[in-house]
Amino acid sequence: MNAPDSMIDVTRLEQALAQFARDRDWDQFHSPRNLVMALTGEVGELNELFQWLPEAAAWDVARSPDTAQAVRDELADVLMYLVRLASVLKVDLSQAVTDKLAKNAEKYPADLVRGSSKKQGG
Amino acid sequence: MNAPDSMIDVTRLEQALAQFARDRDWDQFHSPRNLVMALTGEVGELNELFQWLPEAAAWDVARSPDTAQAVRDELADVLMYLVRLASVLKVDLSQAVTDKLAKNAEKYPADLVRGSSKKQGG
Amino acid sequence: MNAPDSMIDVTRLEQALAQFARDRDWDQFHSPRNLVMALTGEVGELNELFQWLPEAAAWDVARSPDTAQAVRDELADVLMYLVRLASVLKVDLSQAVTDKLAKNAEKYPADLVRGSSKKQGG
Amino acid sequence: MNAPDSMIDVTRLEQALAQFARDRDWDQFHSPRNLVMALTGEVGELNELFQWLPEAAAWDVARSPDTAQAVRDELADVLMYLVRLASVLKVDLSQAVTDKLAKNAEKYPADLVRGSSKKQGG
Repeated sequence: MNAPDSMIDVTRLEQALAQFARDRDWDQFHSPRNLVMALTGEVGELNELFQWLPEAAAWDVARSPDTAQAVRDELADVLMYLVRLASVLKVDLSQAVTDKLAKNAEKYPADLVRGSSKKQGG
Repeated sequence: MNAPDSMIDVTRLEQALAQFARDRDWDQFHSPRNLVMALTGEVGELNELFQWLPEAAAWDVARSPDTAQAVRDELADVLMYLVRLASVLKVDLSQAVTDKLAKNAEKYPADLVRGSSKKQGG
Repeated sequence: MNAPDSMIDVTRLEQALAQFARDRDWDQFHSPRNLVMALTGEVGELNELFQWLPEAAAWDVARSPDTAQAVRDELADVLMYLVRLASVLKVDLSQAVTDKLAKNAEKYPADLVRGSSKKQGG
Repeated sequence: MNAPDSMIDVTRLEQALAQFARDRDWDQFHSPRNLVMALTGEVGELNELFQWLPEAAAWDVARSPDTAQAVRDELADVLMYLVRLASVLKVDLSQAVTDKLAKNAEKYPADLVRGSSKKQGG
């Protein structure tokens, strides 16, 4: 259950991934840098799903029979390596997100940046 | 609150990000391909934190005063663009992760792949 | 000088980068995995230049005063880390490109794949 | 042929890639943003080759029978999309590299940054 002020709850996924690695003796491969590279590889696969798509078609990628399963799988893969990476680094991802949202709210006041992509992070 | 069989709950973050974009009239920029590129940019920044680190030092990146805040911020940025991307694509990230975990469990039976990185996804 | 059948000549850049690293005692940092991560970081920065741009505006990125220098710098950074990576791996990049072009020509016969992005690599 | 002060010569590759696209009516897909995403996809595949490798084994990746061809192909793919991207953006990659090298030499004076990865770009 989310704590009242918690933005996310990924505890069960974190535990499932730790168990999955332990069962396969894969902890030895899950060093921080290995996981950063694995995360990068999955983000690369996500890019490959979108690279030749017209802007309009990209909105339908999760509904189109050709790509619906692949895009769900790639989004899941990215999330799983991200949660695993935070886990081995002992970063509380929920707290990190809460803090970053507060920082962003201060950095990009709505009335100053409205409608401008230049004011947006990147 | 997580449903009993739900691996993650990112509902509140999803809502907070939608509100954040709405308040700034940024929905116009949050097309799927734009968000894939923004996600990629953040993963690039994560790589930059690790690129010159010896393997051993990488374990301490979230504790070292030089890098602790930066790594938390980058992990949060990656998560936020990922959740926002799933949101505009109308993908249920929790269901996608549950399905992918089941698929991985079938693809990598513990007794067949134990201790082998070659048997691991990528 | 390019050999008659050589697609690229990056010899001078390769030598300049090796000298640059040697002069700064940076060879110790230029391991293959470090260079892959550094290359990834630069590709991330390239993505950041394009992430909020409409398709039409992206064609002008190297002419627009706001972005012209940045895009040239990022393309150069990507190329430099790529050449450096090939160099430490002792891969002849020119031969690798020639071979890959031949493989692609065989894999994608012009009369079978004309006008179809699905037939394209990725 | 390289001009006397030119760091690279990729003219023939640039022409070969333009011809390859023209023969397949693929120019329509080679927009700047599409090519950035395709480049990112290939860098993702490069990461996948290295993600589970111990640092020491990574030096042998281009000699090991399991990976030699794949790493050559991925390096070539990254280079080809990079050259194609520079081409459609009308960026002179050789000049961009020469300028960036000069900028780096000024930014990282050898006697000030020797042996320090913190002084290195990223």
